[in-house]
Amino acid sequence: MIQSATNIKRPDKEQLKVVNRKVNQLNIPDSPLPRVVIIGAGFGGINLVKKLKNKPFQVVLINKTNYHLFQPLMYQVATAGLEASSIAFPVRGIFAHKKDFYFRLAEVQEVNSEENYVETNIGNLNYDYLVIGTGSKANYFGNDNFRTHAKGMKTLYQAIGLRNFGLKGLEDTLLLKDSKEKQVALNIVIAGGGPTGVELAGALAEFKKKIFPKDYPELSPDLMSIHLIEGAPRLLSAMSNKASESTLKHLKKMGVKVKLNTLVKDYDGTKVTLADDSVLYSKYFIWSAGVQGNAPCGLPEEGLVRGNRIKVNDFNLMFGSDNIFAIGDVAQIATDRDRPKGHPMLAQVAIQQGQLLAENLQRIENKQKPQAFKYWDKGSMATIGKNKAVVDIGNIHLTGFVAWLIWIFVHLAFLMGFRNKVIVFFNWIYNYITFDRATRILLKRQ
Amino acid sequence: MIQSATNIKRPDKEQLKVVNRKVNQLNIPDSPLPRVVIIGAGFGGINLVKKLKNKPFQVVLINKTNYHLFQPLMYQVATAGLEASSIAFPVRGIFAHKKDFYFRLAEVQEVNSEENYVETNIGNLNYDYLVIGTGSKANYFGNDNFRTHAKGMKTLYQAIGLRNFGLKGLEDTLLLKDSKEKQVALNIVIAGGGPTGVELAGALAEFKKKIFPKDYPELSPDLMSIHLIEGAPRLLSAMSNKASESTLKHLKKMGVKVKLNTLVKDYDGTKVTLADDSVLYSKYFIWSAGVQGNAPCGLPEEGLVRGNRIKVNDFNLMFGSDNIFAIGDVAQIATDRDRPKGHPMLAQVAIQQGQLLAENLQRIENKQKPQAFKYWDKGSMATIGKNKAVVDIGNIHLTGFVAWLIWIFVHLAFLMGFRNKVIVFFNWIYNYITFDRATRILLKRQ
Repeated sequence: MIQSATNIKRPDKEQLKVVNRKVNQLNIPDSPLPRVVIIGAGFGGINLVKKLKNKPFQVVLINKTNYHLFQPLMYQVATAGLEASSIAFPVRGIFAHKKDFYFRLAEVQEVNSEENYVETNIGNLNYDYLVIGTGSKANYFGNDNFRTHAKGMKTLYQAIGLRNFGLKGLEDTLLLKDSKEKQVALNIVIAGGGPTGVELAGALAEFKKKIFPKDYPELSPDLMSIHLIEGAPRLLSAMSNKASESTLKHLKKMGVKVKLNTLVKDYDGTKVTLADDSVLYSKYFIWSAGVQGNAPCGLPEEGLVRGNRIKVNDFNLMFGSDNIFAIGDVAQIATDRDRPKGHPMLAQVAIQQGQLLAENLQRIENKQKPQAFKYWDKGSMATIGKNKAVVDIGNIHLTGFVAWLIWIFVHLAFLMGFRNKVIVFFNWIYNYITFDRATRILLKRQ
Repeated sequence: MIQSATNIKRPDKEQLKVVNRKVNQLNIPDSPLPRVVIIGAGFGGINLVKKLKNKPFQVVLINKTNYHLFQPLMYQVATAGLEASSIAFPVRGIFAHKKDFYFRLAEVQEVNSEENYVETNIGNLNYDYLVIGTGSKANYFGNDNFRTHAKGMKTLYQAIGLRNFGLKGLEDTLLLKDSKEKQVALNIVIAGGGPTGVELAGALAEFKKKIFPKDYPELSPDLMSIHLIEGAPRLLSAMSNKASESTLKHLKKMGVKVKLNTLVKDYDGTKVTLADDSVLYSKYFIWSAGVQGNAPCGLPEEGLVRGNRIKVNDFNLMFGSDNIFAIGDVAQIATDRDRPKGHPMLAQVAIQQGQLLAENLQRIENKQKPQAFKYWDKGSMATIGKNKAVVDIGNIHLTGFVAWLIWIFVHLAFLMGFRNKVIVFFNWIYNYITFDRATRILLKRQ
C-alpha cells in the first residue's frame, strides 16, 4: 500500500521528551527544535545537511568515518593515480560554524524505531526524524568464499589496501624463478563489468603498459594479465549499447581479457572458478559484481525490500513509519510503476533526494504537503583510459576524447573542496603528460 | 688507529665467486661488475645511487619501504597539513631505466662481514662493497615504558598513526562530561625540544588556534594544552642562541608551555613524570628527546661506537673492514679531532657523504687514493609557525618572515619529484591563506 502525505505526522512531543532523557548518550545539547538524525555522510547525507541550513531543525550527522568520500574516484587511489585524502573531505570542514549542527564519529548498530532512537558504538541517541543514507555494500550472493578471499574497494582503507597488495605482489614476483609462478602472481581477475570493474580494468591496463616496464624491467610485461569477467552479455549494462561496445573495443585494445555472459562461481584465494567450469589462477581477485543496500538492523520487515534496501514512498519516507526516511543507494522508491526496482544507485539520485528531503522536512513541520521525488537524469558515464570515456546524456551517446573531457570536468565539479579539485586536476595533468602514477607508496606497519 | 687508503683492497674475486653461488637468493642477475649493495634509501643512499650512474658497478639498493621519505616534513603529515604521499617518492620512480641497478624491498636482519653477504627477510645476498645508510631511530635510553607507550614519528606509518590518534582523541573528548577529563584528553606532551619537537609543537599550536575552534565549537580551546619539555637549558640546542631565544619567545606567544632544564623521567600511558617529580597527565605523549644510530646486527664490535653508530674513517670506511662503508646518520667519522662525536645527524651530511662515496668507490676500484670527507655546512633551520622560522647560516642568524621564506624554498628544493614539489607548495599556499589543514582524515580499518 502506498502511504499518502497525510499519513506523515510529527511524533508526539511529550512522549519523546521521556525518551530524550533516557537516550542522549552522545552529548548532544538540548534544543527546542526537532532533532533530525542523519546516518551517513555520503552524497545524500551531505546535501541534506547543506540544504537544512537556516531551517528550524537541530541536525545530528552520524558517520563511521570523519570524512565524506568521493567514491567514483576510488579506483584511482587503488591504482596509485591519486592520494587517499584527495578524494576525502573532512565532514567538520564542510559544516564549520553551522548552527545547531553536530557531527558524531560513530557506527550505528541498530535503529529502535518503536522508541525513536539509534544505538551506536558510542551510545544511543533519540531522534524526531531519522534519515538513513548508509549507501550500499558488496553483495556476495551468499558465497562466503568471496567475502573471505576477494578484495573489495568500498572503503578508503580497502582502496589503499588494494594498492599496497598490488605493489607488494609485484615486489614478491621478482623473487620467483619459475615463469609459470610469475604469471599466476601477476594475474588479475575482476569480477563484474559495471563502472567499477571497467574503470579499474582500464587503469590497471595503463599501469601495465606505462609503469610496469619502467619499474620492473626485470619482468616481462607479458607475464601480467588483466581479466574482466561479466555475467551479462555486455559491459556497463546500465548504459547504452554504444557505450558498451565502445568500452569493450577499447579495453580489448588495451589488452584486457574480457569474458562476457560468464558468472564467477567460486574463489578459494588462488583459484577462480567460472560458471563454465574454466579456471583462472590469481591472488589478486576483485569483487565488483554486485552491490546491495546497507540498511541498518532493527528496521521493521515491512520497511525492507530485496537486496537489503529500504522501501520508501516518493517522499523517501519508509513504509510503516512516520518519521524514518531513507535516501540514496539504500533507498528504493517502491511507488514508481516505471521503476519497479527503484532508481539506479548513482550519486545524482542521492544528491537530488537529499536536497528535496530538506525541503520536505520543513513542509512536514509546517503541516504542508511534501513534494514527490522526481529524478532528473543528468546522464551517466565511465572512463576507460587516457582520452577514452563513454557518456550517455539522454539520447546522446558520446565516446572518445570529448566524452573523456566531459568525464573529467563533471568529476571535478562534484569533488568536494577547492583544494581537492586543484590537487586532483594537477595530478591528472601530471599523469597525462608523464604517464606516471606517483602515489605508488607501499604503506605498512613496520 | 686510523685506517689509511692503502688498506682498502678489493675482496678476492675467486673467493667471492664461491660465496656468490651460495647467497644470491634475491634473484639479482650475475654481472661482471663488482656489486655494491646499499642498505637504506634515505638521503645518503639515494644520492649515492644517483652518483654511481655510469660508473662500473652493479648496484643493489635494499630498503624496508618502497619509497624515499622526506623526513623533515613528517610533522606536517602528523598534523594534517600534508598528505603522506606528498613527502614520499617511490624508489623505482627515481631510478627507472638505470642500467644494472636493482631495488629490493627487504629488511636487513644481519650483516655477515666475514663472508660478505647480508641476511634479509627475503633471503641473502653477497656483496663486493656494502654501504650502510640505515639512518637513526628513537633512543629511549633504556626505558621500556617510553618504548611501549610513547608515540613516535620516525616512519610514515607512525606519522599517519599520530594524525589518526589525535583526531580520534578529539572525537572521543566530545563524549566526556567532566571538564577535568576533557583537559586530560586534550593534553599534549612532547619530550625533546630539538627541531622535531619544536616544529611539531608549533604546528599543533596552530591547529589549536585555527582548526580546533572551527571543528569543535562544542569544546573550549582552553581545554587543550601543548607542553614541550626539554632537558637542556635552551630549545634547538644545536643552533645559535639567537635561534633558541626567538623560538622560545614565539612558541610561548603561541601558547605552548615550554619547560627547559627538565628531563622526562617516565610515562605509563597516562602519567608523564618529570625529573623534578612533577606530573602531567596525557594520552598524547610524543618522544623526540633522543635518537641513536640504526646500525644493523652482525657488525664487528670494533666497527661500532656509543649510540649504535658505525665508526668510520674519513672515507666513510668502517673500522676493521675493507669493503663496508657507512654514510649519513648511522655513520660517525671518528678521525676528525674537531668533531669527536661525529657530524650532526642532518640530511646535508648524508647527501654529501653519499655523493663523495660514489667517487671514492670508483677511485678504490681504480687503485687511486680516495678523497677525505669534508662537510660543507650549508646551515640549519627550523620552522615554528606561519611566517616564523629560524635560520643559521655560518654567522648569519635570521628569524621571522625572511627565515620562513628561506625555510620554505630550501625544503621545496630538497623534496624529491616535481609533482611532490608542486603539491606541497600548493598545500602550503592553501594552508597559508585559509588556515586550513585539509588532510585531517581519520583512516582506519572498519
